[in-house]
Amino acid sequence: MSDMRLPGEAHALVRHTHQERVLRALRERGALSRGEIARAVGLSRTTISEITRDLLRHGAVVVVDTDAASRAGSGRPAERLALDPNSGQFLGVDFGHRRVRVAIADAAHEVLASGRQTYDDSTGWPERIETAFALIDRLGAERGVHFRALQGIGIGVTGPHPRSSAPHAPEGAFGPGFAAARDDVDVSFAERFGAPVMVDNNTRLAALAEALAGDASAENVLYVRLSDGVGGALVIGGRLVPGATGLAGELGHVTVVPGGGRCRCGKDGCLETVASVPAMLAACRQRGADVGSLDELASSTDPVVEEVLRDAARALGRAVGVVAMVFNPAEVVIGGDIARLAPVIVEQTSDTVGAELFPWVAAKPAFRCARLADDDGATGALAALFRSSPLLADYPEPAPIRALPA
Amino acid sequence: MSDMRLPGEAHALVRHTHQERVLRALRERGALSRGEIARAVGLSRTTISEITRDLLRHGAVVVVDTDAASRAGSGRPAERLALDPNSGQFLGVDFGHRRVRVAIADAAHEVLASGRQTYDDSTGWPERIETAFALIDRLGAERGVHFRALQGIGIGVTGPHPRSSAPHAPEGAFGPGFAAARDDVDVSFAERFGAPVMVDNNTRLAALAEALAGDASAENVLYVRLSDGVGGALVIGGRLVPGATGLAGELGHVTVVPGGGRCRCGKDGCLETVASVPAMLAACRQRGADVGSLDELASSTDPVVEEVLRDAARALGRAVGVVAMVFNPAEVVIGGDIARLAPVIVEQTSDTVGAELFPWVAAKPAFRCARLADDDGATGALAALFRSSPLLADYPEPAPIRALPA
Repeated sequence: MSDMRLPGEAHALVRHTHQERVLRALRERGALSRGEIARAVGLSRTTISEITRDLLRHGAVVVVDTDAASRAGSGRPAERLALDPNSGQFLGVDFGHRRVRVAIADAAHEVLASGRQTYDDSTGWPERIETAFALIDRLGAERGVHFRALQGIGIGVTGPHPRSSAPHAPEGAFGPGFAAARDDVDVSFAERFGAPVMVDNNTRLAALAEALAGDASAENVLYVRLSDGVGGALVIGGRLVPGATGLAGELGHVTVVPGGGRCRCGKDGCLETVASVPAMLAACRQRGADVGSLDELASSTDPVVEEVLRDAARALGRAVGVVAMVFNPAEVVIGGDIARLAPVIVEQTSDTVGAELFPWVAAKPAFRCARLADDDGATGALAALFRSSPLLADYPEPAPIRALPA
Repeated sequence: MSDMRLPGEAHALVRHTHQERVLRALRERGALSRGEIARAVGLSRTTISEITRDLLRHGAVVVVDTDAASRAGSGRPAERLALDPNSGQFLGVDFGHRRVRVAIADAAHEVLASGRQTYDDSTGWPERIETAFALIDRLGAERGVHFRALQGIGIGVTGPHPRSSAPHAPEGAFGPGFAAARDDVDVSFAERFGAPVMVDNNTRLAALAEALAGDASAENVLYVRLSDGVGGALVIGGRLVPGATGLAGELGHVTVVPGGGRCRCGKDGCLETVASVPAMLAACRQRGADVGSLDELASSTDPVVEEVLRDAARALGRAVGVVAMVFNPAEVVIGGDIARLAPVIVEQTSDTVGAELFPWVAAKPAFRCARLADDDGATGALAALFRSSPLLADYPEPAPIRALPA
């Protein structure tokens, strides 16, 4: 061992690098067929077959199922491989304004249990956290899930989520006890479960889940959600853009009506004052249309209501137009029930954005409404865990690291 | 060699990974002291000393100088290490509207030669390319530079630079023969020099150079240039954001005056129609101020001229405000001679952006005018070459790849 210039060594090292790429693809994406792995890591099918054979033999990877269910076309179903499911569990939690959502997954990305529990909008953070703990305990007991090797906890919270110093937002502006929320959540979950905790804005996590649920090629995504507020997020190369201080994505607080109505953030004329669901309902009432709920807003045939929806979408389109000119996304995804229920939102936003961009096909992103439902935040928290390498730095390697037989 | 479960092997593999990180840091950043390398790759000084000792012994890395010239404080000057300068040359070319700039560097990032050659704004692409070739030949002869191992050519061009399909821009909108420019440049340089060619918008390349010239921590940068037109670019984590179709960064064509004047891009009321130097000069004349050149625009004490500059900066600030809300940059850099000569531009833009963002310290980026001069595009082209891993995939490794003595 004094000098290791052995002829087979370069080969072994290259193979080790290839192994790492395969394991990383499985960590990030969950179960994949050998063909999908080959495309994901850019290696030949032959090489992938060799690598996965070795990984299977060492127990780092297992066969979980076949692609018979999802397979397009005929032919023999292909085995799908994944990291050993028992090597770790992951917990995704999404605290919304009126409910908490929980999803628990294994290292193969299989969701072992998921559920939701409602609470009142005025509920404080300590109670919200206790509600989540009780839900997690109940789900664990019902489904027999044990956190034998909990690898990480991803938590979504409402409101902007600065990375460093706490924001000086007006108390209560973004929900009860917003400013203190993050620290409480961090500490409470870390103490209770003894695992690393990652906290982020839940709209951003939903955006990540949506980007991954879309076409594989659509890795340049601008996501916007219209609900009680208006949130947004950017995804580049399958990863969230956090921004310099963790504040990226706040499309809802772009000024669209200079000198317009006061926003709860303290500014005037934010997009949220025009395009949130409460703002649309208020505009309808103001213009004499009798709609009192989101469902009525979406289903009304009153032309006044349609014009309110179009006005909101035009304001959204102007803001998205600026961002699209600078960020050049492949896809703009609009989330929130209203976008799903009222197609005029996506249609009008797309039209307005089109007029704001260069009149070239290459300049125009695709538009769609979100595919996921209420579980998008918890799903996104899991995706962020699977994809955030710092957190998973000590993710179990197929120990020991060694060159495989040549 | 049938089964390599040797005790020293895991150690050798870890060291190989560390070596790769050190080599990558030197590739991307040029000459660094051991302390700078340690900070860049996140390893201890002791580990770095061991790794660099081995790399020096194998000739992959050389000592180029000491940090005596740039060192802050007292103490013994530290050696600076770099990749073997003779292992490759890199060529950066920037085609502006009225001149071409060339810079030639070695693998240690040392600029071996640089220069510029003017041409008329109406000069066609074949002549521009011939002018560049002649300049490169002359620089090579004068400085004794030989392209023994030319690793890559980075080329900046004016106008938007879509990655895939050619844009359907009006002929001449972004300079003579814009649509065909890229293909000509690609092929001409590849044929002449027999090296891989990368072409990008020159404002984007300047943005990369500026981001790297700024504080090391400022890796989230929004760059804007006010000159004959208005260009922009986003840098995240030290890399340019290309966008889905290569069109990212076109801040100059964001609509800031709905229904405003016709822009050369074909749209109405673009930022460029208000904040480009020609637009500012035209606005001065329209309001009766007698200024005919950029220098007069910058030095005039006429309050009408100041108001024109402020109006341009307010429009810029509104557009930057939207982008900053969504992208959350650490720094906004404003390039172009007018930003350097008229401090009111940066000052007013900063004020306007501040009013568009959350009123929190964490939300506000730093503002500065650009530090680099006319050589920013060519410098950025070199930086893009050093940092673009695909191009450098076959960059010479310290061959052969092998584990070093334990």
